[in-house]
Amino acid sequence: MIENALKLIEERKFVELARLLKEENAADIAVLLGEVEETALPVVYRILPKELAAETFVEMDPDRQELLIRSFSDRELREILDELFLDDTVDIIEEMPAGVVKRILKNSDAETRRSINEILQYPDDSAGTIMTIEYVDLKRDMTVAQAFDRIRKTGYDKETIYDCYVTDASRRLLGIVTVRTLLLSSTECIIGDIMDTNVISVGTHDDQEYVAHQFEKYDFLAIPVVDTENRLVGIVTFDDAMDVIQEENTEDIEIMGGMTPSEKTYLRSTAFDLFRHRIPWLLLLMVSATFTGMIITGFESALAVQVVLTAFIPMLMDTGGNSGSQSSVTIIRALSLGEVEFSDLARVVWKEIRTAVMCGLVLAVACFLKVMLVDRLLMGNTDVTIFVAAVVCITMALTVLVAKVIGCSLPMIAKKLGFDPAVMASPFITTIVDAISLLVYFGIAKLLLF
Amino acid sequence: MIENALKLIEERKFVELARLLKEENAADIAVLLGEVEETALPVVYRILPKELAAETFVEMDPDRQELLIRSFSDRELREILDELFLDDTVDIIEEMPAGVVKRILKNSDAETRRSINEILQYPDDSAGTIMTIEYVDLKRDMTVAQAFDRIRKTGYDKETIYDCYVTDASRRLLGIVTVRTLLLSSTECIIGDIMDTNVISVGTHDDQEYVAHQFEKYDFLAIPVVDTENRLVGIVTFDDAMDVIQEENTEDIEIMGGMTPSEKTYLRSTAFDLFRHRIPWLLLLMVSATFTGMIITGFESALAVQVVLTAFIPMLMDTGGNSGSQSSVTIIRALSLGEVEFSDLARVVWKEIRTAVMCGLVLAVACFLKVMLVDRLLMGNTDVTIFVAAVVCITMALTVLVAKVIGCSLPMIAKKLGFDPAVMASPFITTIVDAISLLVYFGIAKLLLF
Repeated sequence: MIENALKLIEERKFVELARLLKEENAADIAVLLGEVEETALPVVYRILPKELAAETFVEMDPDRQELLIRSFSDRELREILDELFLDDTVDIIEEMPAGVVKRILKNSDAETRRSINEILQYPDDSAGTIMTIEYVDLKRDMTVAQAFDRIRKTGYDKETIYDCYVTDASRRLLGIVTVRTLLLSSTECIIGDIMDTNVISVGTHDDQEYVAHQFEKYDFLAIPVVDTENRLVGIVTFDDAMDVIQEENTEDIEIMGGMTPSEKTYLRSTAFDLFRHRIPWLLLLMVSATFTGMIITGFESALAVQVVLTAFIPMLMDTGGNSGSQSSVTIIRALSLGEVEFSDLARVVWKEIRTAVMCGLVLAVACFLKVMLVDRLLMGNTDVTIFVAAVVCITMALTVLVAKVIGCSLPMIAKKLGFDPAVMASPFITTIVDAISLLVYFGIAKLLLF
Repeated sequence: MIENALKLIEERKFVELARLLKEENAADIAVLLGEVEETALPVVYRILPKELAAETFVEMDPDRQELLIRSFSDRELREILDELFLDDTVDIIEEMPAGVVKRILKNSDAETRRSINEILQYPDDSAGTIMTIEYVDLKRDMTVAQAFDRIRKTGYDKETIYDCYVTDASRRLLGIVTVRTLLLSSTECIIGDIMDTNVISVGTHDDQEYVAHQFEKYDFLAIPVVDTENRLVGIVTFDDAMDVIQEENTEDIEIMGGMTPSEKTYLRSTAFDLFRHRIPWLLLLMVSATFTGMIITGFESALAVQVVLTAFIPMLMDTGGNSGSQSSVTIIRALSLGEVEFSDLARVVWKEIRTAVMCGLVLAVACFLKVMLVDRLLMGNTDVTIFVAAVVCITMALTVLVAKVIGCSLPMIAKKLGFDPAVMASPFITTIVDAISLLVYFGIAKLLLF
């Protein structure tokens, strides 16, 4: 489709283009609009039918949205804003520079403007910021037939009509009734009798991650958002929850990779953005590697006698680091999926100890064979005595044990203390394990070799 | 709720318990059933109303499901199976030991058994294995009123009724019509005129990750699954797509953490399971650390003269590893979200080079200050000359540059070659970067110090 469309644009065959595009999905047209030349962008966009144009606008990259808004007349802007769901408008506003935001607010009607400002005041990443305020509300004394009438009358500009919310006069949430229930009930039934009163809702200030977890747990289409007095203020739909899940996953992965999380996609981030998110951890970890250096300096005289020991430092450090990060990454993920809680600590540590013993034994044996066969026989390094090999292998096994215990327990403790467990991933664990493995290494070396 | 219920169970107040549970969500009851004693499990389960019992069954842990199935009579088992959606039955079968599977198949009716066997034959992790075959199908010449009749008649045991599929006599998929469209259309409209014929569908053999990406892109409630002749065979609903997204994220994270991915949750995995998934990478990485060791051995004589150089090896290796894993993790995530493609390689490398220059400069300066102030002045280590500091800092800057370029390009190349880019994460990159950083270190040391 995209090649076709680009060709039509080049040949300026806009009538054919219009025919082609009106059958397409908004998401696909947004991809196309990301590829047309900047000068052609407003022309192609204006070809789209009004509703499709609004849907496409939401799917576009923020840079492209900004270009378009700047090319719009006030009337055009107003028309697009009228078509947008409020949560989408808020998403767009959050990405735009101040000048553009001003124009958007100026061209929204008073009520929308008030709602936007309200939503913008909710804390970052709270349910309030991702909710939409367009939902279908019903009254408890309506019949099913009346409910359908209301859905038909008010449903056209709602993001979902399939979950309907039953509220009282002061907008307090009484229950939920799905269109499925409505369809499968007789038309004379009273809403109050068929609505589900066991409503799971979230508060406006609840974290979006918590909201997304409710979706995973209950397979909702939408979840109602209430204020502190249980008054319905909006709903979060499953597609927004899906976005949140992906955002939170990205954040976890970034933090585990030793970066401060960023909200921009990779290609939209400048080199300086990347630098800003990466340098703090690099500096911190570099400085903390001082301790490892100090340990080595402390054993410098011993090392001068047995330089051969130096050759095994990278292998020991890497294996320790890898063992630790395996455990920490596994536990961080399990914590974030809610599979493991702090109360499982003893169970987790015990499981990791048994795993570590198995891994440690296999690694130690493999390492012993490797050192004796490759380093001593094959490479003919006679400094590598059986004692050296023993020191290396015992250190290996102990390091794996320590690494796994630290790797699994630090994230759980961090979570208990209210920190993000993802911070306790590889880079952090590696630094700690490095220091410990060197201490063990030189300690055992002293015992066996000097 | 859970404490209450457990108390009622202990006091054997089953009537009150029944009243409490029938108002609760299946997901919550499943949590409760995970906590009751094994002997009480069948009793409590039998209290649940039939439909809720089936919903709850789906949400339970496989161990608990197995316990229950073993306690069921054939008649009870048949009743539960009748209530389950086919995709859920298949999920359960996949987790059960052979004996239980046999009993499940024996107690399913012939048609279900045939469908189950068909689904079990689709390749692992394909759309066919996660789809449900229960959907609402309509004909193109029906009116809206007739469509509603059909939904009312056939919808009660369908997983979703909101997307209806229009098929011809040979089950070929012609279009989709949503209940929303039906509700907002007049009752005399003909389905063929209001259905959306621009249908996005997936094939039975498409990878589940691809299917999930379609959901993210198009915000679907459900996506139709067709065979090679465009015949509708099932649908995948958004809640299954959400599960797939989380599974794939977990898999990526596990691979990035240097493990082979596991399908079991942490607490369900035995220590031996964990061992099995972790030891291959540990062994591989340990052996590849041989090269780092060989490099050090090659410079052993030089190190014997300047033992002070040894103290900086961990810091250089760690900083290099961290810089590399920052880049690789970022790119792996961007690849998996579809934000970056192989054609962006040049752009990505150029961005990483600029980032690396900034990070490298800041780190080098910080490192120089740290080495001169802490190591030389504070700790009074006179071996740390300004030349040594220079060697360390130049190595640091160069290592960061190399690490970031390798870290960003290897995952992209891996993906291009058809490998999982996540394999190219921290542990793998670290090993490569370690070797390079040592070569650079000793190379520069030779130039400046000897």
